[in-house]
Order: sequence, then C-alpha cells, then structure tokens
Amino acid sequence: MDEERLRRYAELVVRVGVNLRPGQDVTIEGYVEHAPFVRAVARAAYEAGARHVEATYSDQIVTRTRVELAPAETLDWVPDWQIARLKSHADREAARIAIRSQPFPFLLDDLPRERVAPVQNNRLRELSSRQHTTEQVAWTLVGFPTEGWAEAVFGEPDLERLWEAIAHCVRLDEADPVAAWQAHVDRLLARAGALNELGVDALRFHGPGTDLTVGLLPRSRWMSAGGETVFGQWHIANVPTEETFTTPDPARTEGSVRSTRPLTIGGSVVKDLEMRFAGGEIVEARASSGVELVEAQLAKDGGARRLGEVALVDGTSRVGDTGLVFFDTLFDENATCHIAYGRGFADCVDGHEGKSLAELGVNDSAIHTDFMIGGPEVDVDAVTRSGETVPLLRNDVWQLGEGS
Amino acid sequence: MDEERLRRYAELVVRVGVNLRPGQDVTIEGYVEHAPFVRAVARAAYEAGARHVEATYSDQIVTRTRVELAPAETLDWVPDWQIARLKSHADREAARIAIRSQPFPFLLDDLPRERVAPVQNNRLRELSSRQHTTEQVAWTLVGFPTEGWAEAVFGEPDLERLWEAIAHCVRLDEADPVAAWQAHVDRLLARAGALNELGVDALRFHGPGTDLTVGLLPRSRWMSAGGETVFGQWHIANVPTEETFTTPDPARTEGSVRSTRPLTIGGSVVKDLEMRFAGGEIVEARASSGVELVEAQLAKDGGARRLGEVALVDGTSRVGDTGLVFFDTLFDENATCHIAYGRGFADCVDGHEGKSLAELGVNDSAIHTDFMIGGPEVDVDAVTRSGETVPLLRNDVWQLGEGS
Repeated sequence: MDEERLRRYAELVVRVGVNLRPGQDVTIEGYVEHAPFVRAVARAAYEAGARHVEATYSDQIVTRTRVELAPAETLDWVPDWQIARLKSHADREAARIAIRSQPFPFLLDDLPRERVAPVQNNRLRELSSRQHTTEQVAWTLVGFPTEGWAEAVFGEPDLERLWEAIAHCVRLDEADPVAAWQAHVDRLLARAGALNELGVDALRFHGPGTDLTVGLLPRSRWMSAGGETVFGQWHIANVPTEETFTTPDPARTEGSVRSTRPLTIGGSVVKDLEMRFAGGEIVEARASSGVELVEAQLAKDGGARRLGEVALVDGTSRVGDTGLVFFDTLFDENATCHIAYGRGFADCVDGHEGKSLAELGVNDSAIHTDFMIGGPEVDVDAVTRSGETVPLLRNDVWQLGEGS
Repeated sequence: MDEERLRRYAELVVRVGVNLRPGQDVTIEGYVEHAPFVRAVARAAYEAGARHVEATYSDQIVTRTRVELAPAETLDWVPDWQIARLKSHADREAARIAIRSQPFPFLLDDLPRERVAPVQNNRLRELSSRQHTTEQVAWTLVGFPTEGWAEAVFGEPDLERLWEAIAHCVRLDEADPVAAWQAHVDRLLARAGALNELGVDALRFHGPGTDLTVGLLPRSRWMSAGGETVFGQWHIANVPTEETFTTPDPARTEGSVRSTRPLTIGGSVVKDLEMRFAGGEIVEARASSGVELVEAQLAKDGGARRLGEVALVDGTSRVGDTGLVFFDTLFDENATCHIAYGRGFADCVDGHEGKSLAELGVNDSAIHTDFMIGGPEVDVDAVTRSGETVPLLRNDVWQLGEGS
C-alpha cells in the first residue's frame, strides 16, 4: 500500500469531493475491501475538522450469499434502521463520501436475475439516490482499486495498473491535485455556461444503432462539476467528473439508441443494451445479456421508463483517454456521453428553489440509471430554441469554442 | 485460510451459539478484520434457515483516529440510528452473533485515558450490554483470530498458533464439536445444579492480595452455559464458556481482591488491578496501569461500584489449560474465577419473571465489567445458608463431587 498516495487521495475526497465544513459530521460508506481508504478518509476528515466520522461497511460477499439463499419474498427487504441512518445524515446536514466501486464487479452475474433485481432496487438505494439528486447531503461518489476490480478490467488482478489508471482519472498524478481540480472545474463550468448561452431545445445523437432526439424543458439548465446542497454547501458529486449534464423533458425523447459500453448494475453486467423511445417513453429494451435487470428497473414505476438526465463528455476526458472499460458506472459514464432513465435533477431547472419535481416538470422515479451512448462514431448536435442546428461533438471533439 | 475450519466454526456459532430458529433474523457484528468469519457465519445462518442476515462492521483503526483527533466533547456521542439498530433486533426477536475479540488488543493503550474512556462507555455499549443481560435477543459472543491479536498473545503474529488455541477452547478440535458442546453444557449445568442444591449464602476467596467475601441474595440462582431469551429461546451466550455464575447481593461484598490476569477494555489494558470493598461498594481501586479507565466506569452511576456477577471456573477449563493470557475478556474470564462490577442478571434470581432489577434486589448500572480473580493460589469456599463452610476450589480443582 502506497500510504502517501492513499493520503493524497483521501485529502482530495475530503477537500474537493465533499468540500468539508469544519464541525460537520461525515459518513463514509464503503465495502470491506475498501478499509484502507475508509481509514485514510476518516483521518483526513478529522484533520479537516470533522465533528464525527461514521464508517459504514457493506459486504458484497454477504450480499451474494443472500441472493443465493434467502427466501425469495425477503430479497427486497430493508431494516428500518438503515433508512433512519440515511435520514439522520440529511437531518445533520452531513457530508457523505460513498466509495461506490464494487470490489468484484461481476460477482452476482451468474445468479438468477429475478433474485438479483430485488436486492438492487430496494428502498434504501432509492432513498440514497433521491437524497443525492435532491441535494439533501454534501455527497461525493468515488472509487477505490481492489484486486477483484482490476481482474474485471484487465483480466488479471493487476492492482497497481488499476491504481495508476484511477490516479490519472482523479488527477492524483498532478503535483497539486487540489489546484488541478480547480482548473478542471472552471473549465467544466465554462462549458455548461456556453451550453446555457446557446439556448438548447433538443439534442440529437447519430451513430451506429443510434438515432435519438432528447428534448429539453424550456428552463432546463446545464450543470457540471458539482452541485449545491439545500443547506448551501458546494460539493463535487463525482470524483472523477467529466460531464456537462441537464435534465430533459420526460415527454420529448424519440428514436433509438445503442449503448456504447457495458452497463454494470451492482455486481451484474448488462451488455449491448438498446432502447427505443416514443413520446418520451422507453417502449422497447433489448440486450445481449442482463436485459431482465433493466426490465426490473423499468417496471418500478411510471417514471422509470422516461429520461432524467442527458450528459455530454468529450475525448478530453481523463477517464476516456485511459482507453479502459471500468465496469463501473462512475468511471464509465465519465468516459463518454450518457443518458439516465428514471429520476431527474430539480437543480437542473432554472428557478427550482422550493419546488417539487412534479411542479418543475422533471421526471420522478425510484430509480436513476445512467448508461453510456457516446463515442467517436456518435455525432451530437444541439437544436437551439431558435431552430438552428449546432454541432456539439464530432469524433469525440468538442465543437463549441472554449477560448484558450 | 482453512475454509473447512472456518465453516465448522461458523456452523458451531449458528447452531450452538445462538441456536438459530428457522425464519429468524440474524445480526452479525464484527470488525473489518473479521470479514472471512462474518461471511462464513452469514452463509451458515442462511443455510440454517435465517430470514435476513445483517452484517455490521466496526473499524478499530477509525476508532483510534477518533480518539486521537475528534473534539473532546463529542467522544461519547452516538448517532440515534445506532440505537435504533439495536432496538430493532429486540423488536424482531433476532439472533445476535457478536465477534467481540479486538483485532488489535492494545491499539488504544498509548492514547490519553481521558479520551479513551468516553468512547468505551457510551450509550450504545450500555444498550447492547443491557439487551444481553436482560435477554432481549438470542446472543452469543465469540472471538476470531487475527494477526494483531496473535501478536498481543504471543509477541509475534503467529496466526496459526492462535487458531489452534482458539479451536481447542471452542472444541473445534473435536470430531463432532456440536456433540462435544452438548456434553460440555450438560456438565456445566450439573455443576450449577449442585451449587443451587448446596444453598450458598456467600463465597470466600483467599489468595495473595485477596481476602474477599461476596454475599448472595436469598434467591440468587447459579447458572451456566446458556440463557433463555424473554421470547423463550435457549442460547449459549459465550463461546467458549466455562463458568458457573450468579448475581450477588449488591450490599454484601467485603474485603480486598487482587486481579490475577490483565483486564482488557476495548483496546486498552488494565494491569494489576486491586479493589477494596466495604458494604458492597468499591471504596478503592488501584492498578499499575489503566486505573483511569476503571475509575471512569466506576464514576458512571451508583451501581457501577457494586457487584453484578460472581463466577467460578476450575482448572478443567479449556481456556485455562492453554496456559495463555488472551488479552480478551471473553477468553480470559473463562480461564478462571471472576467477578463483574456493574449490572447484574435478572435471570440469576429465582422467580424473576416480569420483575425489574430493582424489584429483585439485583444491582443496576450502565456498565458490566468482568475481571479475573481466580487461579491455583486462590482458594474458594462456600458459606451455606445453614452456616457451613464448604470448599469449592483448591489448587484450581473443583471440590464438589460431580459423579463420574
């Protein structure tokens, strides 16, 4: 274990990720295999003035055993105290550092899909996701290299190689990562600003298997890099982050889309996902593997079949330039353009303060699942409110002038 | 990792320890270093018909960091959801398997005692202990070998040697451990029966530095091996267990006692503890190291200075016959006679059903701390209600006839 690298990563997550306030409570969520990082983050948090740090571990192996052996009707059951735990973070205006990378990305992939799905879509995951998209806590999602993850990415447990890739993605390979992040965030915010100035009414994606139009709301606002909690704390929700995103009109997506990267859902993999939209709704979903997991999510509620997010990522992405498939959405969605079915973001609508998703016309659902649809072969255009078509991405190159 | 040994140990804990009922919920509490055992126990529990298994991990390293760096006034703080978690186990009549051995028994020993004590005596620990002594859950306390624990015991991280010692203590070295436990439990229960028949009014301990009389209640009842929950589930509360114990009269302990083994309190060690009692109360406590930790407990409440337990263990103990000091109370208290200051046991009083500790005349306190006072040099006598003095232990040999 390279202790200095670990320390720098922990400091980055505390200072840049959640942008910790002195006196704030912190919760760190990780898997057992993440213990070295959980410990480093706990230390960094206390050093930055945290009042109390709570470390909560999940165990993917125990989850696998549950899927294998527990009574079928109990698989989506969650004890009330776990709900109380999440609510207490919002009540205390806490910072939440969630180490989301799966120690073994394919661990549940050989198990019956109908037993995996209930575990993946329970009310705990819904609440956690909802707290994030509604900015109830100062949250950041991060990854931590494990041998099992390296095995999934490289076909061999080359932990050091994964560490180097991740260090590059999160800018730990810079002399001063915190300063490098500031420059990166400024660049992403400028990109969001340019898109907002453009006045985008719809996006068009064209590529192999993809001919998709995503219509936005009249007041959809482009965001990037971070968000602000309901109690006014700026934070970087994803480390890494490379996207500029907004929340679309749930009724205005039309056409077909083919995913360009596998989608990993909690230990299972969905391959070659394709979807067809009509009137904003997913009317068909296909995949060469794992479509049952997607179908289970789409059946959750009315909003599950409509889009909550559209996000643009170009070839300058540090995740994309590794050339790797990470089998982890946090990383893979920051390699390329993506969309999410399910709940959207209130704060991606101008004048959202104090209004519900329904009042804002934003899609609502128990779920929010991103999948990747971009790449060098996928052209992206904006159709502006004045009816102009403006190229945004060609061969993964950003087309709007960004100054020098 | 010897998977077969792990599997047998897990099965023992589930079948004998908590005596799991089909359909019952299970909580497994361990430290991060215990993950292989937590996983094996979770599997054994599901295989035995558990409805839901919840694995909750603590992190001793994060606790150390907290003691080092958190604001002093927050060190005894516990989030409400952790209290809700324990209560939910009682509400669900769950089984609780607590892996209590510390991964690093001396981890907090160099930190300021006044910062360690609040972490050791918070309301979470009180509730957990109280749920156990009042039989709200089907509980068992167990240990799991780690390199850090082996280092504490042997001065080197000889994990295999610690495994062998523990396997011996918990009868995993028997061809059929479950059957061996049944015979062991029967023998311990017979010993409790013999003491109950004897009609003990008080115990006398004589040895180097020890001249102690512990008076019992008129209806104190000797127990051993296990207990029964308020919902009627027999379980073995300690694995290993070698003791025959009861709850004394809180007002009738007199004299002086010298501990015969170090007392380990959550990562810190109290050495050479001596206490003087008058009118049932601890009026003086001394130690060559760590007395501040004991003093902090004694200051908790009125009952902390009075006894809640007296327990007899002879030289046939499998823990004792290893010749080791484990620096872990679960093991060390099962090597030799011990007493506990703080809360007593309702079910060690005849006719206790539905009555409070106060109604029964049993000591009550937030704490319950066992320490070891027996050994070959300590003679133990019973004074019977009819005034007779009956030898119980000489040179660690049990003196009451036990049949053949």
